[in-house]
Amino acid sequence: MCDTCGCGERQVDVEVKESLFSKNRALGEENRRLVEAKGAKLVNLISAPGSGKTTLLEATITHLMPKVSIGVIEGDIETERDAQRIRATGARAVQITTGGACHLDAVLVHKALHTLFEGDSHLDLIFIENVGNLVCPASFYLGEHLRCILVSVPEGSDKPSKYPTTFKDADVFAITKIDLLPYFDFSIDEAAREARRINPGIQIVEVSAKTQEGMADWIHALGMKI
Amino acid sequence: MCDTCGCGERQVDVEVKESLFSKNRALGEENRRLVEAKGAKLVNLISAPGSGKTTLLEATITHLMPKVSIGVIEGDIETERDAQRIRATGARAVQITTGGACHLDAVLVHKALHTLFEGDSHLDLIFIENVGNLVCPASFYLGEHLRCILVSVPEGSDKPSKYPTTFKDADVFAITKIDLLPYFDFSIDEAAREARRINPGIQIVEVSAKTQEGMADWIHALGMKI
Repeated sequence: MCDTCGCGERQVDVEVKESLFSKNRALGEENRRLVEAKGAKLVNLISAPGSGKTTLLEATITHLMPKVSIGVIEGDIETERDAQRIRATGARAVQITTGGACHLDAVLVHKALHTLFEGDSHLDLIFIENVGNLVCPASFYLGEHLRCILVSVPEGSDKPSKYPTTFKDADVFAITKIDLLPYFDFSIDEAAREARRINPGIQIVEVSAKTQEGMADWIHALGMKI
Repeated sequence: MCDTCGCGERQVDVEVKESLFSKNRALGEENRRLVEAKGAKLVNLISAPGSGKTTLLEATITHLMPKVSIGVIEGDIETERDAQRIRATGARAVQITTGGACHLDAVLVHKALHTLFEGDSHLDLIFIENVGNLVCPASFYLGEHLRCILVSVPEGSDKPSKYPTTFKDADVFAITKIDLLPYFDFSIDEAAREARRINPGIQIVEVSAKTQEGMADWIHALGMKI
């Protein structure tokens, strides 16, 4: 049971909620200042479970390191698996296990940032891989410079329409696993059109970590060069 | 923004949360009594976005109707699309759009049940298709006789390990889109072993709504016969 999700608009006291979001935002701003003081950039990756966040991160790290020094904060409800996968690429990784919570918040990320920077490590780029959930993580600003939403081809092109609140505040919409397009009824046009209707400024990239197609576009969207 | 997800263990007052869950459970029991009084059975489907809940429902309805009379409560953050898809099969469907909330609760389902039963309609089997989210819906008992968790092959076989709290209280674990097994590194053994470690009594079925493989097992798990 996700025993932290004591939510529901009619249920949780509105003042408690507002105070919670405003505290989270203030600490998010502090995270951003901390990251900027260290000369780094913070990227928050949000998607449903199984959209390929970790696989895309592995490919991204392989492209950018050692020229770009990368750290990753991994958010999961349980297990250290994703951090282990990232460490195998040579990047620094800190695992947060939320023990039930459906999202990362600015407090958890703040602690993880201090761990990442231990020993005065230099990092250029820090990724946060949020808990696999297309809904709740979107409500929690973590201090990121860039918020990226991933939807994989097997999930279907109706996801922007069905989860508009998630797309509203995103900077980048990455359509992942595009090598699978021949096998699924996924319309890039529909997904892109709906995402732009909700958020006209959103940057859309199509990428496959498996075939490497679109990796240059993805890395460009992160503000980096291969 | 999912503005209802004002959660976080350290953040939301524990008493508020406990009162919320206990009220939800009481109304869930009321839903169950209502459904039983009408001679029907209630099934709650929980999965991440894009695991194929609606497609599996379409196939299930095609197999069982008109012998079994079926109603569906569709939960989505936005859009009426899923209810429209279900209505096209001839089943009754009521759409709940949560407008941001990451899960259905017993209040929303209670109202939807009354709509489904309008005109004293007879229904044998009622499905609830929860909001696409593998985390939060697991915390909200809706009165269901059967709770089914779906994970599709493209999502990966590590999902039970990563979302143990979701699997703990489930009756059925359906591995969906098994026609895609040749194209993905998905281990049925790993997924089944981990699900049984968390919940030894869980019933596991492997199914493809596309090829119909495993449909008889799935329908049997629902306590029905083809």
